[in-house]
Amino acid sequence: MTQEEIKEQVYTMGRQAKAAAHALSLLSAQQKNEILRAMAAELRACRANIVEENAKDITAGEERGLGVAMLDRLRLDAARVDAIAAGIEKVADLADPVGEELSSWVKPENGIRIQQVRVPIGVIGIIYESRPNVTSDAAVLCLKSGNATILRGGSEAIYSNRAIAAALQAGGQKAGLPANAIQLIPFTNRESVAVMAGMDQWMDLIIPRGGKGLIEAVVSMARMPVIKHYDGICHMYVDTAADLDMAVSLAFDSKTQKPSVCNALETLLVHESIAAEFLPKMAEKMAEKNVELRADACGLEILGSRAQAAAEEDWHTEYLDYILSVKVVKNQTEAAEHINAYGSGHSDCIVTEDEAAAEQFLRQIDSACVYHNVSTRFSDGEEFGFGAEIGISTDKLHARGPMALRELTSYQYRIRGEGQIKGN
Amino acid sequence: MTQEEIKEQVYTMGRQAKAAAHALSLLSAQQKNEILRAMAAELRACRANIVEENAKDITAGEERGLGVAMLDRLRLDAARVDAIAAGIEKVADLADPVGEELSSWVKPENGIRIQQVRVPIGVIGIIYESRPNVTSDAAVLCLKSGNATILRGGSEAIYSNRAIAAALQAGGQKAGLPANAIQLIPFTNRESVAVMAGMDQWMDLIIPRGGKGLIEAVVSMARMPVIKHYDGICHMYVDTAADLDMAVSLAFDSKTQKPSVCNALETLLVHESIAAEFLPKMAEKMAEKNVELRADACGLEILGSRAQAAAEEDWHTEYLDYILSVKVVKNQTEAAEHINAYGSGHSDCIVTEDEAAAEQFLRQIDSACVYHNVSTRFSDGEEFGFGAEIGISTDKLHARGPMALRELTSYQYRIRGEGQIKGN
Repeated sequence: MTQEEIKEQVYTMGRQAKAAAHALSLLSAQQKNEILRAMAAELRACRANIVEENAKDITAGEERGLGVAMLDRLRLDAARVDAIAAGIEKVADLADPVGEELSSWVKPENGIRIQQVRVPIGVIGIIYESRPNVTSDAAVLCLKSGNATILRGGSEAIYSNRAIAAALQAGGQKAGLPANAIQLIPFTNRESVAVMAGMDQWMDLIIPRGGKGLIEAVVSMARMPVIKHYDGICHMYVDTAADLDMAVSLAFDSKTQKPSVCNALETLLVHESIAAEFLPKMAEKMAEKNVELRADACGLEILGSRAQAAAEEDWHTEYLDYILSVKVVKNQTEAAEHINAYGSGHSDCIVTEDEAAAEQFLRQIDSACVYHNVSTRFSDGEEFGFGAEIGISTDKLHARGPMALRELTSYQYRIRGEGQIKGN
Repeated sequence: MTQEEIKEQVYTMGRQAKAAAHALSLLSAQQKNEILRAMAAELRACRANIVEENAKDITAGEERGLGVAMLDRLRLDAARVDAIAAGIEKVADLADPVGEELSSWVKPENGIRIQQVRVPIGVIGIIYESRPNVTSDAAVLCLKSGNATILRGGSEAIYSNRAIAAALQAGGQKAGLPANAIQLIPFTNRESVAVMAGMDQWMDLIIPRGGKGLIEAVVSMARMPVIKHYDGICHMYVDTAADLDMAVSLAFDSKTQKPSVCNALETLLVHESIAAEFLPKMAEKMAEKNVELRADACGLEILGSRAQAAAEEDWHTEYLDYILSVKVVKNQTEAAEHINAYGSGHSDCIVTEDEAAAEQFLRQIDSACVYHNVSTRFSDGEEFGFGAEIGISTDKLHARGPMALRELTSYQYRIRGEGQIKGN
């Protein structure tokens, strides 16, 4: 395909999505839920075909030498397709954010009535890699919140993505899904990303889900807002007034409960007054899961052979593995400065029995989620009670932290009166 | 200056602003208000110097042949400086949005307490043209909401901007303003805009205030979020069930009360069933202020010599002048389609006594402000009761419509518990 042909095809999808978004914005919650249930049913009906198409991706992946973990993420079997369908039904059961009144007031001097109401954003582009379930998860959350989607998945899952998107479209249309409300870009070249990123005349938001390279590329090119889900370099600060057993338990959970995710702990900061007592306890517990410790000079002195020396690079690193960097700090100010300098603004925790210290920490740390005596692993849309999530935003504009249905909406002011004019 | 020197200097300002933002985020409402009042006092104390510096801009502007309107926008006299100072005191009197609890809940299954709290955004870049009062207005709103600012004004007001910024800094520092909380880029070359737009490691948001060319340039270059204040191509739809006298009054007010602003009416859409009665009445009223009417074929038939023929271009045009385009439509659907296609998503109104038609219109129109029987001229932070505004966003992400203190904040989740872990 020539660049011009790609552009033309993606532009056509943009134009169509805009029209679909308008139709979607007028659907009732009940209509959307019926559409979602019909999509889930169709996905189950197409189970065999989806698994078959997925097998093509798996074969291609094996030929390209993808690793075992990657192939596992890519693989769909009947149970996984059923889980995707069940996920859709769960979204159908959630409350519809569209139409919710955010605030309303009457201007006393003239009687005009101002109402702020949640409305859909419009057209959302999702650019993602590998996992084919994102095709459904993302499209479905966008649909529930009244938005049209243009999906652009990775080449490694193209057969699976096409099969899933086709099932969603076919199922949805049986229940009144507006045409082109969910579109999958049928090719996976880089140019299609560049074209999407430039078409702010139709696309209101772009969400890249994937590695840092993908996000960086989208940020550089995008003309419309981007919501980013960058690294989680999460910290725990163990204060002088911490319950040390609780601190060991929280650090162990935050680090090892699932090390491969963005809300896992990467750096432990320890107040110098309790370091000699706390660090050996912590090391003993971490040894149960063979966590490698990388400590600063002060920590090394206490931990001895149980740790290695940390390098400057360690404070910047999201290990996503059984590795933990450890630093002894003089006080809470030094801890807060370290977190604000090296953290990624994702999730950070203080462990302390001192309420005043805790409240100060919560104000000092400029992160999406700040914790007092709770594991960082709770940074998650499900754990927050949102019922689903499209990701955890490390941005500060529009959506921050766990991002679910409400975060996929905008608002509109509706002003009602009886002929009020400004005059003169 | 070489490009490298500009980059280095602007980067230094970015780094400094980030540190200042952290200090600002910890100030209490009272501390911020004392700073604001000290700034107002210093501005008054520096009145003579500011007017003197402004005279240099005026002289330069006259030499460069700036028009009368432009020179008037640029000019500062003692009364205008006092008005800027009074504006600062008004902002001091507004409620502090920072620290406000947006929501809070307890997770029943584990007892963790989740609180969503307003926090400052961080560092905000403001890029603006001509009017020197923006130096104060923007910096002060950002300060009140806990944000550091980097201001980059236009070359035509550079002496005035420097004098105002110096007074704000000097006054603020007397009352504890953190160093570098308000910084003005001391040069006005294009490169400084490019450098600002690229430094997302320190700057969280950029707001361009000025013409379409400036906004476009910032959108193309910016790596951080941009909040745009584009054109207002505002519409009024006069329904078949309209009170025609009210419709004349609303159209006249929306068009002529202040034609040079973004919430002024540009296009009038009229239901065909009442066009023959309404259009002559409307034309008669508009003639009082010599409004030029540009009508479609159907409107021309009724208006005759009182109107000229509208071209396709007219439906796209923000006149900001005593000109109004007029189109007769078959029904509300055609009106809504016209507005969603040609409008700029700013402010649009329906005039009708039919409540059901009005409610349908409010849902159909994808604009920041939609009105029923109210002049579009009310789209304004002051009129909404926000006490001030930094602009009217035509974006859908983060802030939409009149943008004031709350829209200059982000939020943070604070999670409190007693050692809760995720487990297994």
